[in-house]
Amino acid sequence: MEAKEFKDFAKAMTDYIAEYLENLRDRQVVPSVKPGYLRPLVPEQAPEKAEPWTAVMADIERVVMSGVTHWHSPRFHAYFPTANSYPAIVADMLSGAIACIGFSWIASPACTELEVVMMDWLGQMLGLPEEFLARSGGEGGGVIQGTASEATLVALLGAKSRAIHRTKEQHPDWSDVEILSKLVGYCNKQAHSSVERAGLLGGVKLRSLKPDNKRRLRGETLKEAIEEDLKNGLIPFYVKIGDVCREFDVWLHIDAAYAGSAFICPEYRYLMKGIEKADSFNFNPHKWLLVNFDCSALWLKQPRWIVDAFNVDPLYLKHDQQGAAPDYRHWQIPLGRRFRSLKLWFVLRLYGVENLQKYIRGHIDMAHLFEKLCLSDPRFEVVEEVVMGLVCFRLKGDNETNEALLRRINGRGKIHLVPSKIDDTYFLRLAVCSRYTVDNDIHISWEEIKASADELLAEKKTHA
Amino acid sequence: MEAKEFKDFAKAMTDYIAEYLENLRDRQVVPSVKPGYLRPLVPEQAPEKAEPWTAVMADIERVVMSGVTHWHSPRFHAYFPTANSYPAIVADMLSGAIACIGFSWIASPACTELEVVMMDWLGQMLGLPEEFLARSGGEGGGVIQGTASEATLVALLGAKSRAIHRTKEQHPDWSDVEILSKLVGYCNKQAHSSVERAGLLGGVKLRSLKPDNKRRLRGETLKEAIEEDLKNGLIPFYVKIGDVCREFDVWLHIDAAYAGSAFICPEYRYLMKGIEKADSFNFNPHKWLLVNFDCSALWLKQPRWIVDAFNVDPLYLKHDQQGAAPDYRHWQIPLGRRFRSLKLWFVLRLYGVENLQKYIRGHIDMAHLFEKLCLSDPRFEVVEEVVMGLVCFRLKGDNETNEALLRRINGRGKIHLVPSKIDDTYFLRLAVCSRYTVDNDIHISWEEIKASADELLAEKKTHA
Repeated sequence: MEAKEFKDFAKAMTDYIAEYLENLRDRQVVPSVKPGYLRPLVPEQAPEKAEPWTAVMADIERVVMSGVTHWHSPRFHAYFPTANSYPAIVADMLSGAIACIGFSWIASPACTELEVVMMDWLGQMLGLPEEFLARSGGEGGGVIQGTASEATLVALLGAKSRAIHRTKEQHPDWSDVEILSKLVGYCNKQAHSSVERAGLLGGVKLRSLKPDNKRRLRGETLKEAIEEDLKNGLIPFYVKIGDVCREFDVWLHIDAAYAGSAFICPEYRYLMKGIEKADSFNFNPHKWLLVNFDCSALWLKQPRWIVDAFNVDPLYLKHDQQGAAPDYRHWQIPLGRRFRSLKLWFVLRLYGVENLQKYIRGHIDMAHLFEKLCLSDPRFEVVEEVVMGLVCFRLKGDNETNEALLRRINGRGKIHLVPSKIDDTYFLRLAVCSRYTVDNDIHISWEEIKASADELLAEKKTHA
Repeated sequence: MEAKEFKDFAKAMTDYIAEYLENLRDRQVVPSVKPGYLRPLVPEQAPEKAEPWTAVMADIERVVMSGVTHWHSPRFHAYFPTANSYPAIVADMLSGAIACIGFSWIASPACTELEVVMMDWLGQMLGLPEEFLARSGGEGGGVIQGTASEATLVALLGAKSRAIHRTKEQHPDWSDVEILSKLVGYCNKQAHSSVERAGLLGGVKLRSLKPDNKRRLRGETLKEAIEEDLKNGLIPFYVKIGDVCREFDVWLHIDAAYAGSAFICPEYRYLMKGIEKADSFNFNPHKWLLVNFDCSALWLKQPRWIVDAFNVDPLYLKHDQQGAAPDYRHWQIPLGRRFRSLKLWFVLRLYGVENLQKYIRGHIDMAHLFEKLCLSDPRFEVVEEVVMGLVCFRLKGDNETNEALLRRINGRGKIHLVPSKIDDTYFLRLAVCSRYTVDNDIHISWEEIKASADELLAEKKTHA
C-alpha cells in the first residue's frame, strides 16, 4: 500500500469511526449472532493477490460489526467501563507509525522519557505520595503495564523476590524452593479473579480472607491470619489490601483498577487513605480515564525488587546509558512494549484535568440517579452502597427471580447487564460505561429494567 | 473533543504519518539526546484546561521526534525488525474505535471469531500441521499473544500444569510443591533471554544445554540431560527446542519469533522440520510480517492445559455460550485483550500472500548482498551462516577492535547496529529491518561500516 492510498484509506476510516461512535446509541448493544457466525462470511484462506482497501472497508459492517458487542453504547452496562476517546485513537496512530519497541532507553529515548514524565503528571493528578514519583529524585517511579492483572503479577513477583532475599539474609542455609514453599500472600475474599490467578502464576500460596459486612478486609483479620501463619512456620510476603503490613514487613499492593481514576477528584481521595503505607499502587486509565486499552498505571516505591527479579541482561540489549534512565524491560513481564505514553499525553492535554474531573463526576452522578430510580420502586433494592459509577441492585426476593429478570433484560436486547454474587446473594450490576451516556439514557435503561420486571412478575402471577 | 475536531486532527495526523514514513531515510537514525532530555521540554503538571489539538500537533517534532530512535529507517540495523505498515495502522484505528475487551465470546463475538479464523489463515500460510488449527475440528487452535515472551511463559505454564497433573496420577501422595521442586525444563544455551526469564517467572528450573558448533541443540545432548535428571529424581517437563520429547512425554515448545514469518515461503519450511512433534508453536507477525506490535501468534495442540492452569471463572464473566467458542481469557495471562485480529485481516488482504512472500525474500536477498560485500573485503569475516535477514560479522582479530568499530559506527550516527557474543567471540549484527530498505541502502550501510573500519585501522596504525 502506497502513501497515497493510505491517506485515502485512513481518512475514510476516520469518517467511518466518527459516524460509528456518534450514532452508537442506535445500534443493538449485543449482537444476535450464534457461535461460529463469522467463518462462513470470509474465505477459507488468505488471498493470494492484494485486494483494494475499498473491499476491506466494504466488509466491516457485514463481517465485523454484525458480531460486535458495543462497549461504548450508552446501553452497555456490563462489566466495567473501558476507555475510548478521540485523542487516544489519534495518539495510537502516531504510536503505530513510530512503532518503536521501547525496551531500553536507547531503543527510543522519547518512549521511555515521556512515560516517566506522564506517570509523574498522572501521579500528581491523583495526589500520590512523592515517594512514588520519579520527580522526587528517589528510586520510586511509575510504569505503564498492559493490564491490572499484569500489574498484580509484577507486584507479587517483586514481593516474592524481596521476601526471598530477606529470608536468605536470616537463614543463609535455606534453599529458594524451601523458602518459596513457606511464602504466603493475603487478599480479600472479594478481590478480583486476577489476584487468585497471579498466585497461581507466581506459584505461591494466597489466602483469601473473609471481609467484614462492608466487604472490607479488616486489619484484625489480616493480623490474626499473619500471626497464625508465622506460628506455623510460613512467611507472610504479600498483601493485596490491608493496613498491618508495615508491622510485619509485608509488601502491600493496592489495586484500584477502576476506582483509581476517581482520585483525580479530591473528594474521592478519602478512599485511598493509607496509601503512604503501600509498596505499589495500580489503576487503569484504560478503564475510566478516556485512555484506550492498554494503559494500566503502576507505581512502585522500590522498583529495584522487580528489576532484580526480572533482570536478564544479554549483550545485545546493553547500552552506554544504563542506569541514567529506567530500562523499562526490567519493570514488566514481556520484553517488547509500545509507545503508550503518547495516549496519556494526548488525553491529558486535549481534555485537561478539569474536563476529566467533570467526566468522572458525571458518571457518578448518573449512578446515583439510577440508584434513586431504583429505590423509588418498592419492588427493588440496592444491595451495596453506591460509591462510584456502579449500582448493584435486585428485585426483592429469591435469586431465581433475579436470574430470570437478567435473562429477560438481556433477551430483549435493548440494554446489556451482567450479574454478580456475594455470599449467595445474586444481584444485577449496572455500570455507567459510555462516554456518550447522559441522564436520559439512564432513564431509558431504568424503564427497560422496569418493563422487564413488569413482564416477569405478571407472568409469575399468571402461573401462580 | 468533538467529532468534527477529531476528523480534522486524525486527517492531519494521517498526512503527518505519511510524510514521516516516506521521508524516514533522511532522519538521523538514533537521536543525539542525553538521558533526561525530555522533562524540561514539557510542563511539570498536566494542564488544568483543555488545549487545542494543534498545540499537541506542534509539539510532536520538538518533544517526541527529537528523541525517537527510528526503527523503520533503512539505516536501522539493530536488534530485529519490528513490523509497521499502513494497513495495520488503519486497522488499529478501527480497533481503537470499537475498543471492546474480548475476554470472552459474548464480550464481542467478532473479536474472538475473527481471531480464530485469522489464526487459521496464518497457520495455513505457514503450512502448520492441521492439529494446530481450529478448522480441523479438533481441540487445537491459535491465539494472539502480546509477545513471544508471553507465549513462552504461557506454554511453560501449560507444560507445568500437564506435568503436575500426570505426576499426581502416578504419585497421588505427592504435594504440588514437592512436584514443582522436581520439575526441570531445557533450552539451548543460545536461546533468547526471555526463556531464562520465563523459568524465573514460572518458578521452575530451566537447564541451558550446550549447543553444537552450529548453535543447535542436539537430540543426544538433550537425551543425556533428561536421563541424568530422571536418575536424580527430577521430572523433565518442558523443552524449548529439541527432538526427543515424545520419548519422554515432555512438552515441546517451538519459538520461531523472527524466523516464523519466513515459513510463508515454502523454500524456508525445511527450518521447521519436525514441527509435527511440537505441543506449541509461536512466531511474531509483529516482527517481520508487517503487522504492527503487538501480535504474537501462538498455536496449541491441546489448549486445555493452559485453560486448566488459568481457569478462574467468576460469575460476572460467565455466559450462556461457554464451550461453543474459545473464551480467550483462559488462553493468556491478562484478562483484557484488544481486537488485534483486525490487523492481521487488513494486512493479509491488502498485501496478499504473494506480496508478503516477496517482502520476506527481498529482505533475505539483501542480507546476502551485505554478506557478499562483507566477504569481498579481506579484513572482515562473517561469523554465522546467513539464513534469514540477519548478518553476523566482524573484523578479523580481537574483540576490542570490534568493540571500537561498533562504537565508531554508532558514534558517526549514520546507521545503527548492536553487538552480540557467542563463546567469547564478540561480533556485530546487521539486521535488515525496514520496509523501505532497498539494495542501495545496503550499499550505503556497507560503505559506512567500511569507512569506520578505515578510520579505526588507520588510527591504530598511527598509534602503533
